[in-house]
Amino acid sequence: MIHKLNTYIDHTDLSPDASTDDIVRLCEEAKEHHFAAVCVNPVWVKTAAQQLKGSDVAVCSVVGFPSGAHKSEVKVAEAQLALDEGADELDTVINIAALKAADHEGVRADIEPLAQLAHENGAILKVILEVALLSDEEIERASRWAAEFGADYIKTSTGMLKGENSGATVAAVELMRDSVDPQIGIKAAGGIRDRATAEAMIEAGATRLGTSSSISFIEED
Amino acid sequence: MIHKLNTYIDHTDLSPDASTDDIVRLCEEAKEHHFAAVCVNPVWVKTAAQQLKGSDVAVCSVVGFPSGAHKSEVKVAEAQLALDEGADELDTVINIAALKAADHEGVRADIEPLAQLAHENGAILKVILEVALLSDEEIERASRWAAEFGADYIKTSTGMLKGENSGATVAAVELMRDSVDPQIGIKAAGGIRDRATAEAMIEAGATRLGTSSSISFIEED
Repeated sequence: MIHKLNTYIDHTDLSPDASTDDIVRLCEEAKEHHFAAVCVNPVWVKTAAQQLKGSDVAVCSVVGFPSGAHKSEVKVAEAQLALDEGADELDTVINIAALKAADHEGVRADIEPLAQLAHENGAILKVILEVALLSDEEIERASRWAAEFGADYIKTSTGMLKGENSGATVAAVELMRDSVDPQIGIKAAGGIRDRATAEAMIEAGATRLGTSSSISFIEED
Repeated sequence: MIHKLNTYIDHTDLSPDASTDDIVRLCEEAKEHHFAAVCVNPVWVKTAAQQLKGSDVAVCSVVGFPSGAHKSEVKVAEAQLALDEGADELDTVINIAALKAADHEGVRADIEPLAQLAHENGAILKVILEVALLSDEEIERASRWAAEFGADYIKTSTGMLKGENSGATVAAVELMRDSVDPQIGIKAAGGIRDRATAEAMIEAGATRLGTSSSISFIEED
């Protein structure tokens, strides 16, 4: 059994129809359970930052999400606004086409400015690989490159793909863990809906978990 | 039977792992069949504009997609870049939380600048309502407001939600058609995978169809 499971959790609401009440409740739950962060869409960063002021819970905004197929300048603009409004963490999506094309400089140009911007603002950057769309070779390449270009964490999935097996897997987490140095964090996200799955991800090497089902399994503690 | 079904179609590839080859093929298909437009993620606008130069096919970029829960400034920045790179049409997503909260000025502040920017650049703006997340009252309100704030088209769905009935429905198209003046276009998108569905949407009032299955049913013509 994993001790202090709560401290691994990015308590997440990325639903397009989330309301102010939903985000306020998300923040209340995160404070009560001392989760690592709340993870929200950009329009909710300001609200979350207000709700979480003085707490031990970080504010995480998605950026260039969920396709990653946004122009780099737009990802940077979105990141800057999120940081200005109080984000402590940024979860962005790798340019999957550039990754698959083995375009090292293209991936660098997309990630490095975001990492620099995050670090200049005392924030951290997580880079989502969307492992369900990648071969093992591509997962390994994406992991190495994201770390090389300044990512603090690499993250399995957006949670937004349709179909079975579209989220985190133990195999992907293990491969990511083996591909980067130990100081790089691993966030497993997508389809983590019970404690057994959460613990399996941590045992595979995850150091953070993204889930919207946090409350349902954390109260088993 | 609908005549010239091809002229209704926005030939669409919004997959996060689309490659250059995929986008080039999408454009070739669109030219061959004289589709209305291709609809792509922002990173592919430049490629599509190059491929479609001199053709009768428009380039459509998604903006603030698919959650719509992006900051308005970021939607504007993304729109400006897409227009600069050759987009003729922009498909954006309404701020669903502001819509549901009946925040007329909030929705205005999100849509009006995009409509103005599109029109100043000789482009058109389509506003996606994501009808699967809305009540009939909200669909009607969203339709009226989008038109009021300058949308040229209102569009049913992103096609990105999970689950059954997450895309366009005949009922939603009819309600949208009844909610706005006849000069406002209606784009049905999400789950349109055969000719019967495509024709039903047009009979309900759709003037444009977004689909990635275009080729499979257009060749029945």
